[in-house]
Amino acid sequence: MLVEGRHFLSTVDPQALGHKALAVNLSDLAAMGAEPLAFTLALALPRADEAWLDGFSRGLLDLADAHGCALVGGDTTAGPLNLCLTVFGQVPEHQALRRSAACVDDDIYVSGTLGGARLALQAFRGGVRLEADDFAAVRRCMEWPTPRVALGQALRGVARAAADISDGLLGDLGHILHASGVGADLHLQWMENSGAINPILSCASSHFFHEYALTGGDDYELVFTAPPHARNAVAAAARRADTPVHRVGVVRAQPGVTVHRADGTAWQATARSFDHFA
Amino acid sequence: MLVEGRHFLSTVDPQALGHKALAVNLSDLAAMGAEPLAFTLALALPRADEAWLDGFSRGLLDLADAHGCALVGGDTTAGPLNLCLTVFGQVPEHQALRRSAACVDDDIYVSGTLGGARLALQAFRGGVRLEADDFAAVRRCMEWPTPRVALGQALRGVARAAADISDGLLGDLGHILHASGVGADLHLQWMENSGAINPILSCASSHFFHEYALTGGDDYELVFTAPPHARNAVAAAARRADTPVHRVGVVRAQPGVTVHRADGTAWQATARSFDHFA
Repeated sequence: MLVEGRHFLSTVDPQALGHKALAVNLSDLAAMGAEPLAFTLALALPRADEAWLDGFSRGLLDLADAHGCALVGGDTTAGPLNLCLTVFGQVPEHQALRRSAACVDDDIYVSGTLGGARLALQAFRGGVRLEADDFAAVRRCMEWPTPRVALGQALRGVARAAADISDGLLGDLGHILHASGVGADLHLQWMENSGAINPILSCASSHFFHEYALTGGDDYELVFTAPPHARNAVAAAARRADTPVHRVGVVRAQPGVTVHRADGTAWQATARSFDHFA
Repeated sequence: MLVEGRHFLSTVDPQALGHKALAVNLSDLAAMGAEPLAFTLALALPRADEAWLDGFSRGLLDLADAHGCALVGGDTTAGPLNLCLTVFGQVPEHQALRRSAACVDDDIYVSGTLGGARLALQAFRGGVRLEADDFAAVRRCMEWPTPRVALGQALRGVARAAADISDGLLGDLGHILHASGVGADLHLQWMENSGAINPILSCASSHFFHEYALTGGDDYELVFTAPPHARNAVAAAARRADTPVHRVGVVRAQPGVTVHRADGTAWQATARSFDHFA
């Protein structure tokens, strides 16, 4: 359920909104290694605005078509702008990637780059100024996220636990760790070197650099764990899915997350997640 | 998708709202003769109000339990009050009741009584004054509708076309007629004599009496058609489902609906339905 003013700005391009509304749901399927099948859409609209609906439908259905995911039902009503999607997918029995499957000594990986969407939000809010090209690039991270559907399926039988990063790496990795009864070490140096941190973040201060990569949501990358002996298989899955993945940490028995900074100091993070009622 | 101020009043008892939110969806399954299996719930709430959530959950889950329909997923977010449910049901292959299956000379039936919910709305708006007992009774029609799940299943293989009456008899029968490429005669005298019109409507003026029974929504009864040779089978299905059904008209080849008044005059109705954007 996506609500204007909370999940998206009222000024958003309707085509981008249509794309993102489905993308964030396909991302949930990707995190389980599932294949998208179909979806329903319920829409509350303040008014029937044809130009808006045309753009919204285009963004929505272009992505749906790209994944062979049919719109099979739903509802339309008047009301404050609200989009509610339910997606349906399938995964072979016992092959779903689950949050509870992480094991001690597993490698921790993320796909793509992190922090771009959060930096775009900060720029929209006037909290940071970016070059036009950089702003366009991070805005694209926020408004046109790519659900990692192919990667999720390629990781079946390879990865152990997985989640998508909707609320920030620390929060969503935290869900995996909590469900699996383990903790983790994350290495900022590994993240920087591998390209797991959006390079545009380095244009901003180091404060943004770390915080947004660790706690910024809305990038819809995957975070997953896999045993060390599966490193070649992970690399092969990433190639098959044409999606970069980066090793950024290790699962530990001790609960909690320790973030190791490049300068050798460590930061004991409380795995925070976006609170919808805060 | 149910929106405050449009589908329900802000003053509604949260327990009744929880009941109705699921009831109207189970009613859609009933109209197809389907058996409820499970549902998802997405909630946008202005604030986390424990007392409200407690009442809402009780109304919702009591009805879910009564139908063995499990809550299997969903979402919660902050926003203007909005409830979005998706229900899942099953029906044996080729046995679903469909809107497009009405045939010329079919009898037209409705379940229960019509017009009560619409009269309650009018009373809430101050447009009519009712005795306390009558107000309580029609308010119950509006706030605690009974989805006709057992009847829908009992009508499989007996009825031809079916729909649930969410937007008014003329509107929802109109959907059946349009989908089936036929028209209908409705007989107000048959409706009065059989008990298809809520008896409390007769306390109001004859204007309400007819209009609310024909166009008042929110009762969530079923309207369905069946061939004349199936009258005994329809009666048996009604008994099995412990739900009254009333024969109120006949399917005709000529498109459109003619409403025959008790005094012999006829009214050519345009099958109007609730317009969410009017």
